[in-house]
Amino acid sequence: MRIGFVGTGLMGSRMAAHLVSPEHELFVYNRTRSKTAGLEAQGATVCESPADVASRVEVLFSMLSDPDAVQAAALGTDGFLDALPGGATWVDCSTVHPEFSRRMAAAATERGVRCIDAPVAGTLVPAEKGELLILAGGDTDALRRVQPLLDRMGRKTVHVGGNGQGTAMKMVINTMLAQSMVAFSEATKLGESLGIEREALLNGLIGGAVTAPYLAGKRDNFTAGQYEPAFPLKHMTKDLHLALLSAYQAGVALPATAAAGQLFAAAREHGRGDEDFSALFDDIR
Amino acid sequence: MRIGFVGTGLMGSRMAAHLVSPEHELFVYNRTRSKTAGLEAQGATVCESPADVASRVEVLFSMLSDPDAVQAAALGTDGFLDALPGGATWVDCSTVHPEFSRRMAAAATERGVRCIDAPVAGTLVPAEKGELLILAGGDTDALRRVQPLLDRMGRKTVHVGGNGQGTAMKMVINTMLAQSMVAFSEATKLGESLGIEREALLNGLIGGAVTAPYLAGKRDNFTAGQYEPAFPLKHMTKDLHLALLSAYQAGVALPATAAAGQLFAAAREHGRGDEDFSALFDDIR
Amino acid sequence: MRIGFVGTGLMGSRMAAHLVSPEHELFVYNRTRSKTAGLEAQGATVCESPADVASRVEVLFSMLSDPDAVQAAALGTDGFLDALPGGATWVDCSTVHPEFSRRMAAAATERGVRCIDAPVAGTLVPAEKGELLILAGGDTDALRRVQPLLDRMGRKTVHVGGNGQGTAMKMVINTMLAQSMVAFSEATKLGESLGIEREALLNGLIGGAVTAPYLAGKRDNFTAGQYEPAFPLKHMTKDLHLALLSAYQAGVALPATAAAGQLFAAAREHGRGDEDFSALFDDIR
Amino acid sequence: MRIGFVGTGLMGSRMAAHLVSPEHELFVYNRTRSKTAGLEAQGATVCESPADVASRVEVLFSMLSDPDAVQAAALGTDGFLDALPGGATWVDCSTVHPEFSRRMAAAATERGVRCIDAPVAGTLVPAEKGELLILAGGDTDALRRVQPLLDRMGRKTVHVGGNGQGTAMKMVINTMLAQSMVAFSEATKLGESLGIEREALLNGLIGGAVTAPYLAGKRDNFTAGQYEPAFPLKHMTKDLHLALLSAYQAGVALPATAAAGQLFAAAREHGRGDEDFSALFDDIR
Repeated sequence: MRIGFVGTGLMGSRMAAHLVSPEHELFVYNRTRSKTAGLEAQGATVCESPADVASRVEVLFSMLSDPDAVQAAALGTDGFLDALPGGATWVDCSTVHPEFSRRMAAAATERGVRCIDAPVAGTLVPAEKGELLILAGGDTDALRRVQPLLDRMGRKTVHVGGNGQGTAMKMVINTMLAQSMVAFSEATKLGESLGIEREALLNGLIGGAVTAPYLAGKRDNFTAGQYEPAFPLKHMTKDLHLALLSAYQAGVALPATAAAGQLFAAAREHGRGDEDFSALFDDIR
Repeated sequence: MRIGFVGTGLMGSRMAAHLVSPEHELFVYNRTRSKTAGLEAQGATVCESPADVASRVEVLFSMLSDPDAVQAAALGTDGFLDALPGGATWVDCSTVHPEFSRRMAAAATERGVRCIDAPVAGTLVPAEKGELLILAGGDTDALRRVQPLLDRMGRKTVHVGGNGQGTAMKMVINTMLAQSMVAFSEATKLGESLGIEREALLNGLIGGAVTAPYLAGKRDNFTAGQYEPAFPLKHMTKDLHLALLSAYQAGVALPATAAAGQLFAAAREHGRGDEDFSALFDDIR
Repeated sequence: MRIGFVGTGLMGSRMAAHLVSPEHELFVYNRTRSKTAGLEAQGATVCESPADVASRVEVLFSMLSDPDAVQAAALGTDGFLDALPGGATWVDCSTVHPEFSRRMAAAATERGVRCIDAPVAGTLVPAEKGELLILAGGDTDALRRVQPLLDRMGRKTVHVGGNGQGTAMKMVINTMLAQSMVAFSEATKLGESLGIEREALLNGLIGGAVTAPYLAGKRDNFTAGQYEPAFPLKHMTKDLHLALLSAYQAGVALPATAAAGQLFAAAREHGRGDEDFSALFDDIR
Repeated sequence: MRIGFVGTGLMGSRMAAHLVSPEHELFVYNRTRSKTAGLEAQGATVCESPADVASRVEVLFSMLSDPDAVQAAALGTDGFLDALPGGATWVDCSTVHPEFSRRMAAAATERGVRCIDAPVAGTLVPAEKGELLILAGGDTDALRRVQPLLDRMGRKTVHVGGNGQGTAMKMVINTMLAQSMVAFSEATKLGESLGIEREALLNGLIGGAVTAPYLAGKRDNFTAGQYEPAFPLKHMTKDLHLALLSAYQAGVALPATAAAGQLFAAAREHGRGDEDFSALFDDIR
């Protein structure tokens, strides 16, 4: 199969690497061309534009930073959507809003292109190992067609529902991510105030039944008090803001999510926006 | 070794069963005598009183419902503390307060008895499988002496610190338990308000990196809307109240824990105190 | 002086009535013409369009329901902004967003028209008595020119700052309105849970030093459990949402305002959006 | 009438001064004797002990710092309760807990003494002017008997209910006090983040319909950033803690009160416990 990949940054390059294989031909594009070098060395063909990729493939993946970047690559000058052959499938792995995903799917459908929103849960290490969780929204047939490719990048694909539902699920997961960080930070603050050593707290909680497993990957941050941004705190603040905006629009109350949102907003106000979101641990102390 | 076990209810009987072995002799007592029948059938000797158990053993475990019950069994009429031989070790697995644990340890020390507070994280199934997490507070030597016995009941023992620190750690873990239930309930409410099916939400979250592993054991509750009390909501409300009381006394603020506490208080106000604490899932909808 | 008034609904008609006097000539317009009848009987001239009003006056007031209505009346077909003579002053009393007020002021300035944003605090009774609190944003000279007219409608004008600042102040006041209702509702709930009769609570709090004075006007609602909408709960929910959006954009955390916002969101979720915002009192019980 | 007053500190001395009159004879006691000098100069008789006061009067007022001080003065060595003549009335103006008030009333009744709990709302200035708000709990007849004396000290007495209800009402009022400070602090923070000057905010809010009137008396604190303790922040933190404890015991949820409690707890954690509770204004910025 001929496969395209647009957006080979930190995440995209790791994901695309799993698509290199004797059975497939891989065409890639990135705005900053140097970021395609690793894939080229593995055998991928580097293209001149999103449209250039699109004209050569049956399936096109995109992994871009935000809705504006997706809009530009898909529908801007030399965008890929008009260049994809009829019957092709576009899999957008970018993190955007449900409403934007539905809008892109409609634009694809108009052009005879199938569309799947497939944002991923997981950061650099699972991307590299092909162990991402993939959250898919779209038509069952379209998804079935690309499933073998998704299986190379992720350990599991959850077919959430129609277009936009993969993106909605990503929003849900991010609120869990935020709240588990809040819970862990306050629980360990309580423990320290009761005289328990920090190491004992980390030993007792991390890897346990009440603790979100991803926190194991943040342990070194807490121990060192260093918060290199894998997922910047300002982005988490924004994601919670968007989740609460969606809840407002849907007419539902989410008091604990709102409380968590305010704790991240306070940490941002205290100047920690560019640190990893796990810096909340220090901010509330 | 001669071992005693006082309090062989739902949890205690499952824990004590792991201590039955050719190398040890097991003496048990329970206020409601019928609850010792299973252990007796496995070879344990049933005694007439806590003191009767104590007079025959080197190590005594207790697993009782609350501080009042521990106080009565240890220091009331025919209590075990005065009957234990000098140099014996008392391991209290009951869930109490840190300050109470320290008071009991002092009473033991006065009588030449070593004391460990060792509350457990986990409910009936891990108790039965010998896979509890044991949170120990007390002297390192005393703990080392009973470690082989704890290893039969639990998959891991965390030595948190001195007396009372095991109990403090249990309080920390319960706040995590509460907050992860709150996070899960609100996140799925958000997802449903965005049109995602409940089953898809459970599939996407349970077992994932952002979800506390114990929630897998609650999945059937959410699907059925049935909340048989493994851990009653009113007890969770009480535990959060005690955690916030401890935080107040220690002089620290825990805003998200307070918000979680209010959500459980509201569910109790709505009449759900006797359901499992996972009934919060329904209460906030 | 020749004065115009666009938007003579419930509030506007009461405000405009104070401008009827021998010294001035009053020209009015309302989309639903019947709502100008009372003012016509008092001597005002009813006009055919916003532009028709504008072409005849030196000062034009507007009191419209939301930004879209202001936009249409000012800049739509037969809008008043292009019809006002150079040097005229437009006083917008509508409740809008700070950013919208600044945009309107810029549009006015381009056309040689002075602009003041002057939303009001107070509802029907103070409007009728000429006792509104007027929150003004804009140029000092422009404000001085219309101050005698504002003094007829309000007991006090606070000159908050430049354009948009009157509107910003209205947003601040609405958050106070919301939080005082929340505080009163929870405090009386606490009192009732401690066995104090509702009447005794109302007697002890209303009119007192810790209670926002406006609550006296809501007393009958609490006693009767009837919440005729003077200010609908759904609008309060929206205003809090906008305030929190502004705080997010400004980079500041407001945890108690967020908690209040969630309580109103919950009341709306429970179906009380069309009742008065004081229905929160019943909703949290 | 012969009247006693035990506890003539900052508040008590100002209150007792209103009882000096030709019609009455006033007997006073204070642990630190120097604090009775002013009253002595006005004609009061200084006594040697609470019992000494009690043996000479028909009505005895107490105004002491906390339950322990009341317990000691009433029932300790030379306490006043055993020395009061049968049929006398004890009016306790101290701020204590509802349950403590009921306990004291029972002790009085056993001794044939009538008892009223009558804590006051208001601080030094209203005490001096005789304009306190008095919150009374107890029997109607007993209250009627002392009403003329209360009218000298307060502008209004609210008869809340039976014994303990005056004290309960004081708790309710303190939660309003706390929440209005929180609301004011966040609303002005929002306003400043939107570019409104602090003075303009104070002008727009203080004295207005949405602002608790007592905030006028704190204006100088906000302007100067100086928080001399009229009511220390640590006491407010404690009062909120007690209110939430009472709510927990009564089985009701108070989420906004809990959020306010955490903001005061955070301010105390930041070292502001000994400043006035209005220092919250600075703490959240």
